[in-house]
Amino acid sequence: MLGSGFIGRFYADSIQGYRSKDKIVSIYSRRAESAQKFAEDYKVGHVTTDMEASIAHPDVDVVCISLPNHLHEEAVMLCCKHKKAVITTKPLGRNAEEAKRMLLAVEEAGIFNGYLEDLVYTPKFLKALDSVKNGALGRVLWAKSRETHPGPHSDWFWNIELAGGGCILDLGCHCVEITRSYIGKDIRPVEVMCWADTQVKPIDAEDHAIGLVKYENGAIGQFEVSWTFRGGLDLRDEVMGTEGTIWINSFLRTGFEMFTTGKGADYVAEKAESNSGWLFPVGDELNELGYNHMFMDMFDAMEEGRAPKETFYDGYVVNAVLDAAYRSAKSKAWEPVNLEIWRGQENVQKPSNLIEYDQDHYLVKEEMTHYGAKKLILKHKTSGKISEQILN
Amino acid sequence: MLGSGFIGRFYADSIQGYRSKDKIVSIYSRRAESAQKFAEDYKVGHVTTDMEASIAHPDVDVVCISLPNHLHEEAVMLCCKHKKAVITTKPLGRNAEEAKRMLLAVEEAGIFNGYLEDLVYTPKFLKALDSVKNGALGRVLWAKSRETHPGPHSDWFWNIELAGGGCILDLGCHCVEITRSYIGKDIRPVEVMCWADTQVKPIDAEDHAIGLVKYENGAIGQFEVSWTFRGGLDLRDEVMGTEGTIWINSFLRTGFEMFTTGKGADYVAEKAESNSGWLFPVGDELNELGYNHMFMDMFDAMEEGRAPKETFYDGYVVNAVLDAAYRSAKSKAWEPVNLEIWRGQENVQKPSNLIEYDQDHYLVKEEMTHYGAKKLILKHKTSGKISEQILN
Amino acid sequence: MLGSGFIGRFYADSIQGYRSKDKIVSIYSRRAESAQKFAEDYKVGHVTTDMEASIAHPDVDVVCISLPNHLHEEAVMLCCKHKKAVITTKPLGRNAEEAKRMLLAVEEAGIFNGYLEDLVYTPKFLKALDSVKNGALGRVLWAKSRETHPGPHSDWFWNIELAGGGCILDLGCHCVEITRSYIGKDIRPVEVMCWADTQVKPIDAEDHAIGLVKYENGAIGQFEVSWTFRGGLDLRDEVMGTEGTIWINSFLRTGFEMFTTGKGADYVAEKAESNSGWLFPVGDELNELGYNHMFMDMFDAMEEGRAPKETFYDGYVVNAVLDAAYRSAKSKAWEPVNLEIWRGQENVQKPSNLIEYDQDHYLVKEEMTHYGAKKLILKHKTSGKISEQILN
Amino acid sequence: MLGSGFIGRFYADSIQGYRSKDKIVSIYSRRAESAQKFAEDYKVGHVTTDMEASIAHPDVDVVCISLPNHLHEEAVMLCCKHKKAVITTKPLGRNAEEAKRMLLAVEEAGIFNGYLEDLVYTPKFLKALDSVKNGALGRVLWAKSRETHPGPHSDWFWNIELAGGGCILDLGCHCVEITRSYIGKDIRPVEVMCWADTQVKPIDAEDHAIGLVKYENGAIGQFEVSWTFRGGLDLRDEVMGTEGTIWINSFLRTGFEMFTTGKGADYVAEKAESNSGWLFPVGDELNELGYNHMFMDMFDAMEEGRAPKETFYDGYVVNAVLDAAYRSAKSKAWEPVNLEIWRGQENVQKPSNLIEYDQDHYLVKEEMTHYGAKKLILKHKTSGKISEQILN
Repeated sequence: MLGSGFIGRFYADSIQGYRSKDKIVSIYSRRAESAQKFAEDYKVGHVTTDMEASIAHPDVDVVCISLPNHLHEEAVMLCCKHKKAVITTKPLGRNAEEAKRMLLAVEEAGIFNGYLEDLVYTPKFLKALDSVKNGALGRVLWAKSRETHPGPHSDWFWNIELAGGGCILDLGCHCVEITRSYIGKDIRPVEVMCWADTQVKPIDAEDHAIGLVKYENGAIGQFEVSWTFRGGLDLRDEVMGTEGTIWINSFLRTGFEMFTTGKGADYVAEKAESNSGWLFPVGDELNELGYNHMFMDMFDAMEEGRAPKETFYDGYVVNAVLDAAYRSAKSKAWEPVNLEIWRGQENVQKPSNLIEYDQDHYLVKEEMTHYGAKKLILKHKTSGKISEQILN
Repeated sequence: MLGSGFIGRFYADSIQGYRSKDKIVSIYSRRAESAQKFAEDYKVGHVTTDMEASIAHPDVDVVCISLPNHLHEEAVMLCCKHKKAVITTKPLGRNAEEAKRMLLAVEEAGIFNGYLEDLVYTPKFLKALDSVKNGALGRVLWAKSRETHPGPHSDWFWNIELAGGGCILDLGCHCVEITRSYIGKDIRPVEVMCWADTQVKPIDAEDHAIGLVKYENGAIGQFEVSWTFRGGLDLRDEVMGTEGTIWINSFLRTGFEMFTTGKGADYVAEKAESNSGWLFPVGDELNELGYNHMFMDMFDAMEEGRAPKETFYDGYVVNAVLDAAYRSAKSKAWEPVNLEIWRGQENVQKPSNLIEYDQDHYLVKEEMTHYGAKKLILKHKTSGKISEQILN
Repeated sequence: MLGSGFIGRFYADSIQGYRSKDKIVSIYSRRAESAQKFAEDYKVGHVTTDMEASIAHPDVDVVCISLPNHLHEEAVMLCCKHKKAVITTKPLGRNAEEAKRMLLAVEEAGIFNGYLEDLVYTPKFLKALDSVKNGALGRVLWAKSRETHPGPHSDWFWNIELAGGGCILDLGCHCVEITRSYIGKDIRPVEVMCWADTQVKPIDAEDHAIGLVKYENGAIGQFEVSWTFRGGLDLRDEVMGTEGTIWINSFLRTGFEMFTTGKGADYVAEKAESNSGWLFPVGDELNELGYNHMFMDMFDAMEEGRAPKETFYDGYVVNAVLDAAYRSAKSKAWEPVNLEIWRGQENVQKPSNLIEYDQDHYLVKEEMTHYGAKKLILKHKTSGKISEQILN
Repeated sequence: MLGSGFIGRFYADSIQGYRSKDKIVSIYSRRAESAQKFAEDYKVGHVTTDMEASIAHPDVDVVCISLPNHLHEEAVMLCCKHKKAVITTKPLGRNAEEAKRMLLAVEEAGIFNGYLEDLVYTPKFLKALDSVKNGALGRVLWAKSRETHPGPHSDWFWNIELAGGGCILDLGCHCVEITRSYIGKDIRPVEVMCWADTQVKPIDAEDHAIGLVKYENGAIGQFEVSWTFRGGLDLRDEVMGTEGTIWINSFLRTGFEMFTTGKGADYVAEKAESNSGWLFPVGDELNELGYNHMFMDMFDAMEEGRAPKETFYDGYVVNAVLDAAYRSAKSKAWEPVNLEIWRGQENVQKPSNLIEYDQDHYLVKEEMTHYGAKKLILKHKTSGKISEQILN
């Protein structure tokens, strides 16, 4: 490298920023032809339809579980048996009971465990979280995450037995971890209120749900999830704090807009619904959806002997919140989050909402009027009386 | 007019589109100086601090009530007494009981009554509603309206006694009527689930709330209201239907963006929070917020001897929904909407979510794969089994 | 009106803000059936195919010319003859010579004359211009206006003889007046550089052009016009000043977004290209495109005995600029704007670009480094040497 | 890897997608302390203030030139001498003469050469270019690239001798290569028209410029560059084709919006101008600005023994276009692009704009009227007469 200024540093950051030492050495699939095809595409040496053979393969250092929900536990237990590091796609379990068993098993086995929640690794999320941690929004009051699209790709998702649930489990797991991260992963989620319904699809599971998660410090997490949305993959987050707000659109509006009369390429973006008219492609889906940063964290964590940002413990907490959501959708009331294992803060108090103005008053609001004067709205400390005061 | 083509019609639509026959002939205010100032600004002949004198003034044809919530009923009753047409700002009452009394009074008196819910008259709303009515979105599944800002301008808003409530009443009334309009004003709102809290302001009323309103046909209305939002006036609506979606931003992102280092004009837009950096002014607030179209409808309705789009009846329904929201915020469960007066459809059924595919199957989903093939996900009618089918 | 607070003022502004005293009393069209249809739609009493009869009709106070370009002069001359106030659609003439004749004629006749340039009356433009006038952008350096769409509606536009030109004349007239207004209508446009081509349409006139207009104070106006754009009606303006920037999108991105699978209404917006997929309707086209505010200004001006904001003089200046653009497209060099009539400032100097820092230096730039330090870039006054200085 | 479905492929693409085998082994800087600091930050073993020592270092395989413009040639010549692969930051030379010498030297030396034009490697650009190549926009008519900001970071940029020019050279090099790529890198740029001025900064070089580049096939490239823009780093591209359009915003509007009252972090994004109010951070600047994909292409190309997408030849073409721009800014007329070395197509014809409708007519335009009827505008082949036809 010649030159060490601004641009040289950018280059250096980038050159040394990503890694590709990692190789896939074994592929397991339930269907032989599918495994074979994968092996060819990605040049994988060991191909098998025997899950344990893949896990036990001597060249395998870390097992990446990308199986349907109902097979997670079995695969995790085999990793424990063979003492292989394990990283698992989301959600961890079909419910908190399953998740807890997996969590306890990997910890007892003493193996590295990572929870592949990619959406808390998107570049936008990471930057936004930094801003929140730096206090740019003040105290977080509310965080919402929305993930809706026209429905998943594979058949097993639609089978409530195999999947463990509908869009709450499939998509809500993302939303809960995103909002929980903004509010603080050490703040206990206390209770959940959830509406869920099967509005469109001919299935047993819910295809649309909205939930509120109350945290011990009074902050509110919100999720909006659906398999009935028309228009593509809608991934939006919002955070409100006492000093600011953040709006993130991770997919449908990212500064890339295209109109075409219809001679465009066939595959525009994951879950896009059309290929003519106004389209909103995503430049680099892998990066925009957090996969790069997630795997970097996972592999770096392994090498450095530390836990990754997302572990099975996080997967367990998410499952516990979603269990409460399912109970609430039935009971039609707020339901407590049952967290037998809790490693965050205890007994956090909701902060006071009283802002001292002078000896006798609290400040309610300060604003500029039409006429350029400053107006104060005050509340008397003892009488509670509200009054206005115009400053000159 | 010379010429009758495209541009001539546009001109003609516009020339004949607005009206200004209407004049303010009397101004009442509780404070004499305030009334006086108003009279000068708008060239009003009759100025008084006696409400009844203003209402009874012989030149007054229609009384426009722009008073704090706790004075609506008194003013309405005086209009009934003097048989004057009356239009009232939102919310109609502080609760459904008050609203019902006003509704029954104006109907008994046989006077024209209009409910000044401007946000169902914004140009965007009117166009969007047309699209929804034309079926562009298919069946409406969910409609959300969000109105948040840093808090109201006048002292009485912050006094729970005079205002009747906090941001639920102040802002939720807009949101409920907007979402109800999209779902169908003849569809009964059945029950409400609401979270509310006082997170920031030193007041007794709620400064942040989120609510869900379930309608008899299974559709869900949602409101998000707050006096704690930082960033200006956030007015956004979303509608999801089986065939499409609508996103409206009525204030903070309307295609007008400005950066200034800080030497700009003082008053950018209602409830804007700063006057330097990136600003998002609104071209014509009166029009964007629906005032023009609302008054046109009101005055045209009077002249044509018909009811306006929004009457006291609508104000009453809104109050009933909000009452249920307040109850739910306390009971932490869904609460029924008590509508003693209901003039819409009865016993609407939730539509079936079964889409016939062939004799034996329902269609769950149809999509294009990465590889350009069409994939169907089907559900067997009797066994309920989910299967995939690739079409070539 | 009861109440004189914030909302009462909004109501009052709106109630008294628009006018509809104005009526169309006579309609002339070259085709009888077209005139007849128009008369029915707008309830016009006098219907004729004799232009002079319409102008001379005793109930006609003001003549609104909405004719093809080649008929403007004839119509204006008849208005002069009958001493009728006249307002004319854009462009005023097919060239500056025609425009000048019309200007001199109406001034000699002493009749009210208005130039119907609606796009300097859009709510966004009016607000933006206020900000510019208030100094929010500092000194204006560059103003661009873009109007492109897939081509005009009527056949005469495509006939270079009748229209007088292609998209430069049709659309450039808007852009020139918009940018000229931002830069200052009293600043002389000095010279023009223009590229024009017929890239797509089988016509003689240009269907795509880009031009730069240099003003005496060094500011640059830019227009981008085309009849070949695919995607709808693209109306965007940008202004850059020493202290800020403005971006306006008047049509395709106004905070209203809709996705539909295709069962929507047929007519979404002027020049929209599709009715399925993602659509971007405009709430109220008449208002968004400036027609309301334009006619208000015209009629108010007449009543108040003042000139409207846009007169035939402005139309003449625009034509002179466009004439230079056409010459430049042929000569491939900058061409002077020939303004025999000029009523603005004379001999405006380009402002100095030297910012005093201290006795010996000018300030080139001041910025924050990565490391939080303030860095100054200075230029020595006599040696011209550039140096960096880090402040702590 | 367990599982080979959709998500597994995404994971696999990402895991194997990036690389970090590459290490910086030697750092040269003109200032010892700067080199030392760099070496510590990036763990570089060899530190020197002797450029040739760095290049000649035996562990160095490829030399990355990140020096000021006036040192490029010297460094390149040393790479030729030592037969080291070389990649150079933009612009290649200060003018085409310098660039040509470098191009001929590296080719004679037979060394790998890459031109580090990152903005044709941004994820959005790569995806957009794919769409253009796939024909989504039809034939490209116009491509514009805009890069403006408040001015560069280092002192040498402001020195016309060292930098070789102002914002045309600094920013225009990006814009020219972006637009040239959309239009086709094998299409010859024929002539350039450019306006340039020093409007704000007290410097000799231009701080604002707009240019048009005409290509042999009739397409137009446009650049808008400035060091006077206020509002951050404005990076936008637009492409218009006969069948569609693309709008890209690479920095200021990427789906990430934040409002803060001012307690945020200090460094939001490159060249951001404020840290309170509405801010628009970028999630991952390295990726968004193309650095990752650029280095991947460079290193992969070296290993695969192929040329990278951008070579010194491209740098030379860009310099030749910019030279013409500088000449045009002075001559005030279109100036030819002098390309002594040209490796693209020769004698490309501008395509016909005649669309056959029937035996006698060309089709000018087809559209839907207000009333739902289809209207055709036709041109007679021999007479040239324009006519309208309404279809039912």
